[in-house]
Amino acid sequence: MLGNFTFCNPTRLYFGEGAIQNLKGELAKYGSMVMLVYGGGSIKKNGIYDGVMAVLKECGKKVVEYGGVMPNPTSAKLAEGARIARENNVDLILAVGGGSVCDYSKAVSVSAYCEDDPWQKYYIRFEEPTCKIIPVGCVLTMVGTGSEMNGGAVITNHEQKLKIGHVFGTEVFPKFSVLDPTYTYTLPKYQMVAGFYDIMSHILEQYFSGEDDNTSDYIAEGLLRSLIHSSLIAVENPRDYEARSNIMWTATWALNTLTAQGKTTDWEVHMIGQAVGAYTDATHGMTLAAVSMAYYRYIMPFGLKKFARYAVNVWGVNAESKSEEQVATEGLVAMESWMNKIGLVMNLKDLGVTPDMIEGIADATLIMQGGYKVLTREEVIDILKRSL
Amino acid sequence: MLGNFTFCNPTRLYFGEGAIQNLKGELAKYGSMVMLVYGGGSIKKNGIYDGVMAVLKECGKKVVEYGGVMPNPTSAKLAEGARIARENNVDLILAVGGGSVCDYSKAVSVSAYCEDDPWQKYYIRFEEPTCKIIPVGCVLTMVGTGSEMNGGAVITNHEQKLKIGHVFGTEVFPKFSVLDPTYTYTLPKYQMVAGFYDIMSHILEQYFSGEDDNTSDYIAEGLLRSLIHSSLIAVENPRDYEARSNIMWTATWALNTLTAQGKTTDWEVHMIGQAVGAYTDATHGMTLAAVSMAYYRYIMPFGLKKFARYAVNVWGVNAESKSEEQVATEGLVAMESWMNKIGLVMNLKDLGVTPDMIEGIADATLIMQGGYKVLTREEVIDILKRSL
Repeated sequence: MLGNFTFCNPTRLYFGEGAIQNLKGELAKYGSMVMLVYGGGSIKKNGIYDGVMAVLKECGKKVVEYGGVMPNPTSAKLAEGARIARENNVDLILAVGGGSVCDYSKAVSVSAYCEDDPWQKYYIRFEEPTCKIIPVGCVLTMVGTGSEMNGGAVITNHEQKLKIGHVFGTEVFPKFSVLDPTYTYTLPKYQMVAGFYDIMSHILEQYFSGEDDNTSDYIAEGLLRSLIHSSLIAVENPRDYEARSNIMWTATWALNTLTAQGKTTDWEVHMIGQAVGAYTDATHGMTLAAVSMAYYRYIMPFGLKKFARYAVNVWGVNAESKSEEQVATEGLVAMESWMNKIGLVMNLKDLGVTPDMIEGIADATLIMQGGYKVLTREEVIDILKRSL
Repeated sequence: MLGNFTFCNPTRLYFGEGAIQNLKGELAKYGSMVMLVYGGGSIKKNGIYDGVMAVLKECGKKVVEYGGVMPNPTSAKLAEGARIARENNVDLILAVGGGSVCDYSKAVSVSAYCEDDPWQKYYIRFEEPTCKIIPVGCVLTMVGTGSEMNGGAVITNHEQKLKIGHVFGTEVFPKFSVLDPTYTYTLPKYQMVAGFYDIMSHILEQYFSGEDDNTSDYIAEGLLRSLIHSSLIAVENPRDYEARSNIMWTATWALNTLTAQGKTTDWEVHMIGQAVGAYTDATHGMTLAAVSMAYYRYIMPFGLKKFARYAVNVWGVNAESKSEEQVATEGLVAMESWMNKIGLVMNLKDLGVTPDMIEGIADATLIMQGGYKVLTREEVIDILKRSL
């Protein structure tokens, strides 16, 4: 059954090659002080930085540059960015990068004028912002997180070994996002396919929960099939515009709240993956890939009907004269084969996890309530060991 | 290939049984003068009117009532509503009804302060609004048109025998819509299934265009499968909340611009159906149903690959050792069987069309450019005759 919900997603998206031309019109809506946020500097090599700076100058903006946002943005970095935004009276935060940069910018937007320690308020106590929020715009250079059209902002605290996501409300959603598929061409293959799996995981975390047969699940299946189709083309030819643009669009809808409406969700793979990330700083999508098969094989018996449906509707498994369990199992085999084919990291060892970390990672893993099986700490340890 | 596009849909949706409780919060955002727009008065019988009025009174609103909006709202009715809205300095138009009432309210919203004749400006010259636009909110009582989350507003001019839709921009989208599936329970079965086919047609008009294999098509297939599944349950038991809620949610996404992004669309079935509607005042969804099979069988050879994909992905046709044509044909047979099963009107005669009207209907039919076959006037006549 579709439970009651409120849906609103006001982010304006400019999609396609050359979509950056729309930045000018958006910048005109905000004051003169723009904080330009980016990551490790790859945008300076591929020309995106120059393109954005040219538009900013043309619009007469004063620019506060703030680079160096790491793949897993830290609470320390958040504190610094918030201070810079506040001290410069920033009118707009322009995130140019992937999900980390977008997430980070949203976190800064609610932290600059926060009357409390943002890590404590948003990530430990999970409170909502009560201060002035700086508007955020995004120019996306990597696909996967869906951060361009949602309120999610994941922050990592190294001292506490915690990587936690806060999903903020629509007032924190980016006001606009520029989505140019060609901006993602130069991404290394490792990052590209990690992003693909992040998309896959977002859809599955929402799909594998509840026994319902609702519209959200049908939409999810469509998105999954599109992703599988295009990902196989993109790994062969990363410059296939059709494949990359379809994946970019799928990524946005995989995590902009649509497929979660009216249903329960799980998110346990992300919880385990984020704990791995907090320990290893490994690429987010790969941490998800490395634990997924062990997790899904573990919970499959508890959600057999949905796993069988997944096998048939997403992976095209022929169900004729087979038991539900056999069908479901074949679906996971097909999934694993696809994961290997696109080149995902399939075990934790390759991400730097050693057996002595297992207990700590399990302790850092939040246990979610929406899955077919609510895990115990021992089960998390078991899944981590099977993923080694 | 996904063409370039801008996506933005700011409408806030309150979904589920009892969602009307959110009306109070929305009303607080607007001034005191509310124009309450509705249709033939069924909302006075089923208690929805009383429920809405109670909230309006509780919020201290002054209410200008304006009922009698007909299933195909006319340009004359539009002129009158626009005058009333203007003379009463209306702060919010609250549409309580189905697609006709929502469409009509949007048309009034851009016509009240229009400096020109609205029919001429918006429906003949297809110009965009340049005047003040009155905000619109919707309380939906019938499912199908998607009007609750888009800028569409179809108006009929009886003297000119024209039924024309203008798709306005986001500034004309409803600010909010209340979607309570139980509000649709009392709808007569004829109207209910007509709405189901309207949804189906919206998705297909966007799907059957272009040879592309993009995300939009995959989402469309998911929506179609959900609709087919739930419609068969709803015709057996119209009070099945799960089925009715899934259909309500599918209807919204079938025509809120999502599945059209980045691709060409057709809309020829709507063009023919609307011309039939202008001549007969028949229920919109039924006019679409009556001409669809003849139209799709006619254009199938020109879009064979997509029709074969439709057969497999939506209707579950087994393609093994069959020609593309055979697969595509079986898909349309399955579709026709579903249409008969849910009780749609499958010919124009039953809608009051007589052979002498055919030429006139063909003349009133706009020829769209996005279909697999751009029709000639003679081909429209041929399709109409096959649909008689």
